[in-house]
Amino acid sequence: MDLRPIGCVHSPYTTMSDAPHQGRDSDQASEIVIDEQYAAGLRDVEHHPHLIVLCWFDRADRSKLTATPPHLSTEHGVFATRSPHRPNPIGFCVVDLIRRDGRTLHVQGLDAINNTPVLDIKPYSRGIDYVPGKKIRHRQQSQTL
Amino acid sequence: MDLRPIGCVHSPYTTMSDAPHQGRDSDQASEIVIDEQYAAGLRDVEHHPHLIVLCWFDRADRSKLTATPPHLSTEHGVFATRSPHRPNPIGFCVVDLIRRDGRTLHVQGLDAINNTPVLDIKPYSRGIDYVPGKKIRHRQQSQTL
Repeated sequence: MDLRPIGCVHSPYTTMSDAPHQGRDSDQASEIVIDEQYAAGLRDVEHHPHLIVLCWFDRADRSKLTATPPHLSTEHGVFATRSPHRPNPIGFCVVDLIRRDGRTLHVQGLDAINNTPVLDIKPYSRGIDYVPGKKIRHRQQSQTL
Repeated sequence: MDLRPIGCVHSPYTTMSDAPHQGRDSDQASEIVIDEQYAAGLRDVEHHPHLIVLCWFDRADRSKLTATPPHLSTEHGVFATRSPHRPNPIGFCVVDLIRRDGRTLHVQGLDAINNTPVLDIKPYSRGIDYVPGKKIRHRQQSQTL
């Protein structure tokens, strides 16, 4: 299970504390530059106004299993938070594609810091990635470990 | 950039052709069993009705850079499709959490086949993961490579 970076983020954020907690909170533009060897994978990507970007937060602490979200005062398990510090620090962000210039994607709403490796890009689909406010069946109260 | 599986999918799908093209098209229930060493990361996950599940499609073809989606007749770059066959075959799925029993998450809407390694779980947030129908600034026509 080895990862191969397909490209790299160019962003104005140089440290994790510079970056917004969630990219969608920001209008800041960033660039994703895809490596030459993966360029053929970009064909038609410019037809999608929104993209899912998976990054590798290479400066994250992979030993963390709990985190305290910035807007809360209590600690939660990392899988109940969006903390970048987690066993597999894969960043997930839905971005707006502003335009494509060859292997460079100009995007808005990305929370990754400069030089973050990019792992994957997928078109966002409102049909399958959006959860309408439907009721969940059989939901029960929390269970203890 | 080595990945550590945090758990495993138990699903009724045994081959990639069994699985739905998109999990959200199906009401089928699956289980995600998190390994004991990552169990502390699950604390409070049961408070989230929808989860983002990142899996590793270990049976995917990582050499593919183009794909023809099932509903289309033309080939596109893999980064413009949701094909599981891609350089880093990280599956992304938004699922409904039906209930949690200790280290087992009972979910609905997952498209992963049986024994697929799980990489990460994040709470889905309608505020940051949903794209409303807003206009994109400066969007231009497609660029050639």
